[in-house]
Amino acid sequence: MSEGYYVSGVKTEGLDLFFNAKSVAIYGASVTPNSVGQAIVQNFIKPMYEGKVYAVNPKYRQVLGVPCYPSMQEIPGEVDMVVVAVPARIAPRVMQDVAEKGTKAVIVVSGGFSETGPKGAELEDEIVEIAKKHGMRIIGPNCVGVIDTHSHVDTFFLPEYRCNRPKPSNVANISLVSQSGAFAAAIADWTSELGLGISKIISLGNKCDVDDDDLLHYLAHDDTTQVICYYTEGYDPGGGRSFFETAKKVTSKKPVIVVKSGRGERARAAASSHTGSLAGSDKVADAAYKQAGIIRADNFEHMFDMAKALSMQPPARGDRVLIVTNGGGLGVMTTDALEAVGLAVPPPPPELEERLRESLPGYCAIHNPIDVVGDANASRYDIALKEALQGDYYDIVVAGVLLQTPSLGMDVTNVVANHQRQSKKPFIVVSMGGSFTTKAGEIMQLMGIPTYATGEKASVAAWALARYGEIKFGREFKRTAGRTNHK
Amino acid sequence: MSEGYYVSGVKTEGLDLFFNAKSVAIYGASVTPNSVGQAIVQNFIKPMYEGKVYAVNPKYRQVLGVPCYPSMQEIPGEVDMVVVAVPARIAPRVMQDVAEKGTKAVIVVSGGFSETGPKGAELEDEIVEIAKKHGMRIIGPNCVGVIDTHSHVDTFFLPEYRCNRPKPSNVANISLVSQSGAFAAAIADWTSELGLGISKIISLGNKCDVDDDDLLHYLAHDDTTQVICYYTEGYDPGGGRSFFETAKKVTSKKPVIVVKSGRGERARAAASSHTGSLAGSDKVADAAYKQAGIIRADNFEHMFDMAKALSMQPPARGDRVLIVTNGGGLGVMTTDALEAVGLAVPPPPPELEERLRESLPGYCAIHNPIDVVGDANASRYDIALKEALQGDYYDIVVAGVLLQTPSLGMDVTNVVANHQRQSKKPFIVVSMGGSFTTKAGEIMQLMGIPTYATGEKASVAAWALARYGEIKFGREFKRTAGRTNHK
Repeated sequence: MSEGYYVSGVKTEGLDLFFNAKSVAIYGASVTPNSVGQAIVQNFIKPMYEGKVYAVNPKYRQVLGVPCYPSMQEIPGEVDMVVVAVPARIAPRVMQDVAEKGTKAVIVVSGGFSETGPKGAELEDEIVEIAKKHGMRIIGPNCVGVIDTHSHVDTFFLPEYRCNRPKPSNVANISLVSQSGAFAAAIADWTSELGLGISKIISLGNKCDVDDDDLLHYLAHDDTTQVICYYTEGYDPGGGRSFFETAKKVTSKKPVIVVKSGRGERARAAASSHTGSLAGSDKVADAAYKQAGIIRADNFEHMFDMAKALSMQPPARGDRVLIVTNGGGLGVMTTDALEAVGLAVPPPPPELEERLRESLPGYCAIHNPIDVVGDANASRYDIALKEALQGDYYDIVVAGVLLQTPSLGMDVTNVVANHQRQSKKPFIVVSMGGSFTTKAGEIMQLMGIPTYATGEKASVAAWALARYGEIKFGREFKRTAGRTNHK
Repeated sequence: MSEGYYVSGVKTEGLDLFFNAKSVAIYGASVTPNSVGQAIVQNFIKPMYEGKVYAVNPKYRQVLGVPCYPSMQEIPGEVDMVVVAVPARIAPRVMQDVAEKGTKAVIVVSGGFSETGPKGAELEDEIVEIAKKHGMRIIGPNCVGVIDTHSHVDTFFLPEYRCNRPKPSNVANISLVSQSGAFAAAIADWTSELGLGISKIISLGNKCDVDDDDLLHYLAHDDTTQVICYYTEGYDPGGGRSFFETAKKVTSKKPVIVVKSGRGERARAAASSHTGSLAGSDKVADAAYKQAGIIRADNFEHMFDMAKALSMQPPARGDRVLIVTNGGGLGVMTTDALEAVGLAVPPPPPELEERLRESLPGYCAIHNPIDVVGDANASRYDIALKEALQGDYYDIVVAGVLLQTPSLGMDVTNVVANHQRQSKKPFIVVSMGGSFTTKAGEIMQLMGIPTYATGEKASVAAWALARYGEIKFGREFKRTAGRTNHK
């Protein structure tokens, strides 16, 4: 991507270095096991990271085999990025050293800055001033930094045995920006097991320089990011406005999903004590999200369910959902859940009903859901989908697939994927079960079809596909149900 | 348990044979791979099932090594239970044969009865008449029958490679009754991986004899069942009334949770076409559940989250929740979720706040949540819990535990379990993450502490502990928040 473009209030100059640094120095590298200064060195000496690694600490000559220098000035080559893990009180001196070396990207993971009170805030102001003077960018302080699953830049100082790292997918990827470092780590760990492709996770901490807004603009132009996700506890007045301005431009191109905590009063009080954010009125935030075309998720599970669908499938052009299933109960539960989020589940029109009756066995239930019944094989799904997709009756297809019965072969995977490709409409699979079902779901997802364990999760995903269709296509989006809000 | 007791409308005589049959005949046993008649034989020849197994089919001399007889009369020993897998039209003849043998428990898995129309209904009436005349009990027809994880009775004809079987736990177990056979199978498969102990799963099908009501009474007296769960799509008018009468007696002793589908209009139409149940008005059902002390869950995920907590923990005596966490963001999200379900998250009273301030490091946030901060070790949880549980300030404890950081050792597991035992109050753990976290959660659950991946799931569980406290303790339950409904 091209660097250095400026949009009103957005500063994206130099951000690329954080994700694609070809040489990294860890300032405060340490030989002490379990220390932050050692954990970060450990990440960069993994063979996947192909750049150069330097350690900085006057105490050592080397750390884990990495050459260690008393200051930046002794490092023989150029340094694209520095990770600072030193006590806050010496951070200004360290920043000055980094500035003199000419390095432009700095992640300050240390705490002890504005989050602790006026003294810490002064130290934070000092490092910001040095950065501004020398055209440097800072992520943090008080954060865990950045994971990039492509370049293998990884400053998360949590040991891998406790905190798995997510992986990119060949289909589509999500990037996530988190105000909370602990959540950034937990999400990295969690998403490593969810079948979600992750491109970048960024922990912002105190946001003394790089903020939500800068990253929104950067990620909007990042080819490896298909969906942008945020966890936030609040905005400061100025940054908030600029963020929503940027979002208005971005959301017509890429989906943006936000989890904002602090809905209730007690939670807002807790948020304010946690990061010092002014959580503000939650209704104001809701309205701002809606206006900016940002999708607000109630919680992380919903966020990941939505992001998976939005990263793999096209947005819907209307809210009419067709369900085809081999489980009657699953059909009923899924209908309930789709109606609860405000989507339409209209019955097939007479001409379609007639065609379905002619081509499916007599004991199938030709409504919506189309119940192809427990003894269905893949070709019965094929018939139902072929008929139902001839004509513009439906905007989203949910295939309910119970794989406990041996009559349904794994070729249903192909059938579903092929009808998706031909129809270009968004498809979702619901498949409830244990290890065989989970494996089948992974295969579906390799083919680009998002798969969910329950009708409720699938409905949240379907809602997101419809809501993003509404955002993207505006008036061309056809609304059938009374409301399209999933609350 | 003692057999043969009768309560108004409830018939529990002979039910025990379905779960503890010491000898089983499979009527319609088959040598054809993937057939129902073969799959059931396969289940009973597994070494875990210690009873005698016979096959019945005039075509064969043996099926998978099991001796096969032309009719029941040739079987040399007694037969406690028969599983019937023959075409509906010959079912009456088969029932007569079973009756003459003197067998009292029959599971009819075959379809083709009342669910298909008047002709099938006639066949169903015929087999019911034979059963009544001979004092036999029938489960089904049109069902997958029974799994008992202790006796290893297992009539589910889904192959194990696709449909895992659940296991009992040493801590506490759940039994589940499902109207839908496909769901019964999917739930068996799904719960095999959820860390839930399962005692029995029963698929009722057309309920021509044994119904929800009979099983409710039976399971209420079953020592291996701590929580009773139902999936239903509706009740017939008479059976419904009797079920709710029985429930009023049971729910003060054991928690009963129901998922009833068909909330919306379209879903009710689908339910009616699926099982022929009159789904009726959903609001009427809601009121009946509430009056009978039955907990209604919106979906299976909620049901399992609730059942896990209710099976492992005592009910709460009030709705005041304390959160202790090492993740500020997790605390905020959990507070949000608890407030959303209508529970109270009151701040510590001044005397407790003072004690906490004295005993915890200055940078901990002494509110509710108590944020013991990212560098907390287990003993910091110990201090916080010890102080907070001296005095009757809280009714439920939620421990938020982010395990990505190496500073928190696995001894936190012991700390939490010990405070639960000492305080006798219900505890829940929230722990978000990947494989290390999942393993730690399994260990927590072996110690009897239910563990959840998100604050939302934990809140649904906490709500169930409070709601069941309200049901069990009546007026003694102390309500603080305005409402205790999780919708």
